[in-house]
Order: sequence, then C-alpha cells, then structure tokens
Amino acid sequence: MNGAQAIVRTLVGSGVTTCFANPGTSEMHFVAALDAVPEMRGVLCLFEGVATGAADGYGRMTGHPAGVLLHLGPGLGNGLANLHNARRAHTPLLLITGDHATYHKRFDAPLESDIDALAGSVAGWSRRSMRSADAPADAAEAVAAALTPPGQVASLVLPADVTWTDGAEPAAPARPRLPAPVPGEVIGEAARALRSGEAAVVLLGGAALRRAGLEAASRIAQATGARLIGETFAARQERGAGLPALDRLAYLVEMAQAQLAGARHLILAGASAPVSFFAYPGKPSTPVPDDCEIHVLAEGGSDVPGALEALADLVAPDVKPVAQEATRPELPDGELSAHAVATVIGALLPEGAIVCDEANTSSIFLPGATAGAPPHDWLSLTGGAIGQGLPLATGAAVACPDRPVLALEADGSAMYTVQALWTQAREQLDVTTVIFSNRSYAILAMELQRTGAPVTGTTARSLLDLSRPDLDFVSLAAGMGVPASRAATAGEFAVQLDRALAEPGPHLIEAVLPPLA
Amino acid sequence: MNGAQAIVRTLVGSGVTTCFANPGTSEMHFVAALDAVPEMRGVLCLFEGVATGAADGYGRMTGHPAGVLLHLGPGLGNGLANLHNARRAHTPLLLITGDHATYHKRFDAPLESDIDALAGSVAGWSRRSMRSADAPADAAEAVAAALTPPGQVASLVLPADVTWTDGAEPAAPARPRLPAPVPGEVIGEAARALRSGEAAVVLLGGAALRRAGLEAASRIAQATGARLIGETFAARQERGAGLPALDRLAYLVEMAQAQLAGARHLILAGASAPVSFFAYPGKPSTPVPDDCEIHVLAEGGSDVPGALEALADLVAPDVKPVAQEATRPELPDGELSAHAVATVIGALLPEGAIVCDEANTSSIFLPGATAGAPPHDWLSLTGGAIGQGLPLATGAAVACPDRPVLALEADGSAMYTVQALWTQAREQLDVTTVIFSNRSYAILAMELQRTGAPVTGTTARSLLDLSRPDLDFVSLAAGMGVPASRAATAGEFAVQLDRALAEPGPHLIEAVLPPLA
Repeated sequence: MNGAQAIVRTLVGSGVTTCFANPGTSEMHFVAALDAVPEMRGVLCLFEGVATGAADGYGRMTGHPAGVLLHLGPGLGNGLANLHNARRAHTPLLLITGDHATYHKRFDAPLESDIDALAGSVAGWSRRSMRSADAPADAAEAVAAALTPPGQVASLVLPADVTWTDGAEPAAPARPRLPAPVPGEVIGEAARALRSGEAAVVLLGGAALRRAGLEAASRIAQATGARLIGETFAARQERGAGLPALDRLAYLVEMAQAQLAGARHLILAGASAPVSFFAYPGKPSTPVPDDCEIHVLAEGGSDVPGALEALADLVAPDVKPVAQEATRPELPDGELSAHAVATVIGALLPEGAIVCDEANTSSIFLPGATAGAPPHDWLSLTGGAIGQGLPLATGAAVACPDRPVLALEADGSAMYTVQALWTQAREQLDVTTVIFSNRSYAILAMELQRTGAPVTGTTARSLLDLSRPDLDFVSLAAGMGVPASRAATAGEFAVQLDRALAEPGPHLIEAVLPPLA
Repeated sequence: MNGAQAIVRTLVGSGVTTCFANPGTSEMHFVAALDAVPEMRGVLCLFEGVATGAADGYGRMTGHPAGVLLHLGPGLGNGLANLHNARRAHTPLLLITGDHATYHKRFDAPLESDIDALAGSVAGWSRRSMRSADAPADAAEAVAAALTPPGQVASLVLPADVTWTDGAEPAAPARPRLPAPVPGEVIGEAARALRSGEAAVVLLGGAALRRAGLEAASRIAQATGARLIGETFAARQERGAGLPALDRLAYLVEMAQAQLAGARHLILAGASAPVSFFAYPGKPSTPVPDDCEIHVLAEGGSDVPGALEALADLVAPDVKPVAQEATRPELPDGELSAHAVATVIGALLPEGAIVCDEANTSSIFLPGATAGAPPHDWLSLTGGAIGQGLPLATGAAVACPDRPVLALEADGSAMYTVQALWTQAREQLDVTTVIFSNRSYAILAMELQRTGAPVTGTTARSLLDLSRPDLDFVSLAAGMGVPASRAATAGEFAVQLDRALAEPGPHLIEAVLPPLA
C-alpha cells in the first residue's frame, strides 16, 4: 500500500480516529487514504485555525490526540495561533503538515516556505518523514510523543511523494511514556511547608483540576489551612455541585498579588509559577511575594493527582474533601448585561456540559454564577491567542457527542475563527454558542488604560471599537447554516438559551450587551 | 516623546502613512501614538490575515509600504499566509509585531512564543528593537529595507517597553537602494540569443508587467519573432485596450510545457525560471525543455523595464509596440456559469479598475473576456496561499480611493479571510466582490484527479465539497455591513454588477454556479 494508507492505518491502530482537515494538493493522497480506512473520521474545516482549535478541544476532552491535516507552510501558519493555545494547554495533538515532494523542494515553487521553523515554534516533538517505508513508524512515534505527559503538540511533516509511494506497511503503535511518580522527599518537603505554621497556598493546574486532584487538595486545605487556588486559565477543570470549589488566580497581576499576599509558601501542583500576563509600566512581572518560597510538588509531566493524594495521605489522613453544594441562581429579569447572561447560564447549565470560555472581560461573573450548577467541565483560553472558543467547542463536541457544549464567546474573539460554525452545522454538533456582543475589544479598552498610554484623540479608540458597522452574528450564523437568534433582555436570553440547549445540533445566540461607558 | 510616538513620526516622515492593525495589549502605546500623529491612518482589521493581505494590496498599488501592526507570535501567525503571498509578490511591506517588554520575556508568560522564527520565514529584513532611543532609526531602516528592489517584507519587532519609554526622537528617513542597472554584456547576450534564428521566449514578470516593460517587450517580439509570455501569477499587471496583450504561462505544468515546446532560449525579464506549482507522480518539476537555454536578462532587484528598453533599442530600434484593440464581449443571456460571469465582467469592467483575482478554477475565462476592456490592473495570487483576494482588494482600495476595485473570489478561498468585508464596510471602500459560488474546492477536485490518488469512497470527496450546508454569502456580507445580492442567471448578474460598480462603497454578489459534475 502507499505511504498515506499505511500512515492512516497506523494512526487508527494507535487510537487516532479523528482528523480535522483543511487539505490542499500535497495532501491529496492522505485524503484519498481516508476512503481506504473508514475507521478514520475526516472533519472538514474551512480555515486552519478551526482545525487546530478543534483538535485542541478534542484532545482536552479525550486525553488522546486528534490529527490535524494542514497544507504546507501557509496552512500551518493559519493554524499556529490555536496550536499555541494547545501547546500552553499541554494538549496531546498530532499535527500533520503536507509538503512538496522531496525532489520538488529545490525548485522553490510558489508555496515553498520554512515549514520546520513554524512547526518548531509550537511542537514539543517534530519529525519530517523522508521515505514512504519509514513514515508509518514515524506516525506511531508521533502519536506516542503527543501523549508524553502532560501532553504536547507532535509535528509530522509529510512530503507528497512519501504519501504516494508504494511499499509501506502499517507500523505497530508506539508505547507512550507514563507520568513520572513524584519522589517521597518532594512530597515530604511540601508536607513540611504545610505544617510550618506559615501561610501556604496550593496552586493547582493541569491534571490537578480533575476530581481526584481536587478532592486530595481539598483534604489538604481542610487539614492544614492552606488556601487552594486554581491556575488562571485552565485547559480543563471539573467543577460544579459535588466537586470541591476552587477560586482561580486573577488575570490582573495586582489582583493576583492581593490573592497571594501574606503567603510564605506556594506549592505548585501541575501549575507553573504565576506570572503577569503582560508587563505594564511600574507593575511587577510576577504576583508572588518576595518572601514566598516556591515548592514544586509536581510538574505537568509527573503524576500530579498521585502526588496530591500522597500529600493528603500524609497531612490529612482522615479528612474528607468538601464538596460544593448544589445551588443555582434565580432566572433574572430586565436588561441584558454580562451579569444577567452569567446568571441565566448558572440557572440553566445542563449536567455534563462542556463550557468553552472565551468571553474575556464578559466572563467575570461566570464562575460565581455556575459554581453550584450540576457537574461540568470548564475549558479556558490557555495561551491568550484569541479565536479559540468556537473551534475548541467544535472539537469538544466531536469528542463527546453525548454531552452538551456551551461556547461562551466575546464578539471580537469570535471573528477570528467564525468559520467554525460551518463545521458545527455540517457535523450537526450539539454546540450552543453565546456571543457576548458589547461591540468592542473591551479587554483592550481596559488594557489601554492600564498601560498608561496617552489617549488624546479618537483614532486609538476607533481601533478598539467594533461598531460602525455593528456585527450581526445572527446573519453570520445563518450564512453558515447555524440557526441563530438575538436577545436584548434577560428574559429573551433565558428563553432562547433554554430552547437552544433542548434542541440537538448547533445554535447561536447573540446577547446584545450595553455599550461600554 | 516615547518610543512609539517617535517611531510613528519617523514612519510618516518616511512616507508610511497607513497602518493596517489588529493590536493587543503590547501594542497599546503604538495605538495611542496614532492619536498624537494624525498623519498616520489606522485601519482596523478583525483578523490579522486581513491586515497583512491589505498591506500587500496597498504596497502593490503604491509601490510604497504600508505598516501592519500585529500582536505577538499568535497574531503574526495569523498574518503569515498573506505575508507569504506578499513575499512572493515582492511587495514592499513593513511588518510591526509587538512583543512583551524586554524584561518580561524571561517569565514565559502565556503569550510568549518564538516571534523571530515566524518573522524570519517571510521577511527579507528583520530587526528587534531593544532600546527606545534606537527604535526610530530601526523603523527608518525597516522602511528602506522594505523598498529594496524589487520590494520585500521588512520585519520590526517592538517590545512594549521600547514603545512606552520616553526619550526617543524621530529619525530621518533612510535612503532606499535603487534598482541596479543591467550590464551591457547581459543585454548583449540576450540580443545574441534573439538574433540566433532559434526559437526564443521572453518570460515577463514583476516590473516588466507595467506599461514601459510591456511596450519594450512588444517591440522585441515584433522585431525578432520571440514569443512573449507573462509569469503565471503576477503581483500586478497593467493590461487592457492600448497596452500590449500578453498570454500567461499556464498553471498546469503540462500546459506550460506545451507553451514552451520548441523554445531554445528562455529570456527572463523580472521573472523566475518557471517551475511546476506542485509535484505530481510522473510529471516534471519544470516545464522548460531540456535543450532550452535560460538567459537571465534582469532579476527583480535590477532595473527590469530599463533592461527591456535597452534590449529593444538594440534589436528593434525602429519598431513600435503593438497595442491591444478596445473590444468588449456582448452581455450574455441564460444560465450563469464561470464563462458567463467572465463575459459580463469583460462587458462591464470600468476604466482604471483594479482586479484582485482569486477565482482559481473559475478564473479560466477571465483573461480572454477582459483582454480588450479599458486599461486596468490585474493582481494575482502570487504565493498560492488562498485567502488573499478580499484582503488584497481592501488594501488596494485604501491605496487608490479614486479607482474601482473588483475582487473576483472563489467561495472556498473567500472563507479564509471573509472578515475583510467588515473593514470594507467601516472604511466605505469602493470594492465590488464577486463570489464564484460552485460550492466546492473545485481546484482540489481537479488536483485530486491529477495526483492519481485512488478515490474509492465518499469521505475524500466530502473533504473537497463545500455543500451540506451551502454557504450563504449574502447573509455573511450582511452580517458585516456589506450590501449583497445573489445572481442565478447571467442577466441577474449583469444587472447586479452594473449597479454595484455604479454605487460607491462595498458590495458583494454571490454568483451561483452549477455544481461540478
């Protein structure tokens, strides 16, 4: 069989059964191989950033990589922003970029560019297959590399002739590495810090944000008085009624400073040491107090929940975790606002929902409003590259067809990858998208102020303003086959959200918010 | 003044007066500086690929760079595909990417990534400013670098603290290099080839495709019998009534082989030696006959029109160029087809139009139908990275507000950067977009066949098919504030195109074509 068929069979044998694709000529043999290997599901995306963001959502929800099939350097370029987010989320993801045939590279054809430089900027593991006979083993190794704890982007570049040349055979799956156990002395050091009598914070991230890690952390907090804080932008957090509640570290460095004030020990469990998202004149780059000692309990590549459980068994042997009570806000009346939208979502969020949160400034009321909702997963913008939410929701819905997906999306961010709606329509994915339509890059209006940049006219403001003309998301959704409605009051929004969640398939609601002051 | 203000004043002093922007927090001082320097026009784009493609269109039409302001590595990633096209077009373009403050880089904040690797993949000149006091001179050098013949992408990375730190002063404009004159012996060698009595082809590209170069080439052809061929995808070609007509080298290598068959001399004037766009099993990488000698008359960095004129003065001293006669097709009746659309365009194309052609397979009838239309410019997809047409048209319209712009766009390609329509609406640009809506990646359906990939089921075809659901471009345009209509017959299309061209501001027409067989 040809290289492409052997690669696709190898991938299926390695558990990679979904491929988000935006292919071109150099990938045509790979595309044709999908006919030969029906176990692989091909999902067409109309823009590469949709494909990469969808693979991120898929990987976060399954723990296993989806493939992404892209066309040469420009296709990879279009996919980079969401690959950056996947890199920061430690998502297992298999990036497959087609290239010119090996012998054609030297002709510098118009689409020739430095694919390897681009892939290297996002991938933790990279390879370029050079022979059809070797490519299946390369693919198997790429899957194993993607699964290297805590998960990473693995990049495989496939020249066209490698895919079309005959004589290849499927390769056996490669064995992925397991998470490394955390040594007892590291756990002992954390236990000593917790027993020191000095104020301690446990910062939870990555795998610590699933039930096992959260419950162990809750026991630790109960027994020692340590505070628990979750990383600011979690790849995936299990939360809601029955799970331990968790505050998040604030996005703004001065608020994060306030959260960490007085802490003499910061224990990292699956999280990195916190830093300011951006630098600002006169503000610090990290919110960690100068006299606070940082203890790395478990890095992402380690067995983070296992380390937390071992620590809990040491410092809190007989203590039970504290679970969040089931509680929902009342449905609100009156004008629509970010607060009202959050309240409606808290009142209606279905059990098992997957929430993809790219509401940015509008998301401020969401954690509180949904804290006691039925158990659900919360997926955040891990790398700060906006344009993630709609693709992420698309991939999560492909991964979990039996769970409702809710994409909470800022209007500005939605426009980067709005093409995701078409894939949701084609695949009839059960995604409800809520657009927080405040008609501005509200986060930039805030950031402009925080940077202290002198605003003396109207040009700067006009570059942060999404009006003139207003975007009409109902029309945009209709243009891609997604039923949509617009809500101007809290009551309208509640009715529309209730209906959208009840009906299968994709829906979009444009929640029109008051303009910024 | 701060670094940002000094940089913007330097840019304006160097003739850079337009900046296509999709900024973020690290660019806020640059954005604020636009208030202080009103001579710089800021144009907001809702996606970075729109900004870079618009700067490409602006640079092609003015010969001078526009600035593009992007946010960190992911913003640059989103802009790469159209920067790739600009690189292949040799467009003067000033890429400004904001970065974290110099002292913040080491904290590996969530948006940290390898900006320099991405910029290096598209830029002919790159610099990272490290001090506020140096940044204005860096900016002046960047503009001169962008203008280095034949034009290139110049990349300037601006850390946030470089823009916000005070004590900077505007720098004087840097002097760009001039095109190098072509030595007499090179012209003499080309003259000998043309006088050899053996079949010769002159391949024209880059600056040869403007009036002076075309007229000199026409004289050469008249006097020597050499055939003239234009490069396949020209950055900008002047054509129409009163200008010498020119066939283009075919996209498909076997058709290009037929065009070059029998040629013993291939004289390159501003064009590269032709290569196949892609490799295919059993097909050659170049259409140039084995026994054909290649003569480089003038590379892009040289004075290409000057070389052609010198050659013409040598081999055709008393010969006049042959101008295309004014002629237009009749308006067609009946069903809409790619041929009918092309015919209507040929019948109605206004004088001075700027045509941005990303119609791909649907563009096949356009050159013939428009050959005798009033003089116009034709801008092509130079780098093969689709998603160029709508942004390119946007930038061309900003550059040339008194000329009508016609974007001829394939449906699949339109969806990569459809956000350009919003900028056209906000800036009230006189762009008429025609969507060739055949509801498929028709070029890939063709390429699938050409690669010989075995299609045995329906999955492969579904990845090349844009139906289920059909895209509704009228709704999409309305969603971004662009008036739009749909044409199902040749008559409807003619009426709608006539009206769109007559009214100022942006319009979109979805031309519904028969589905592929």
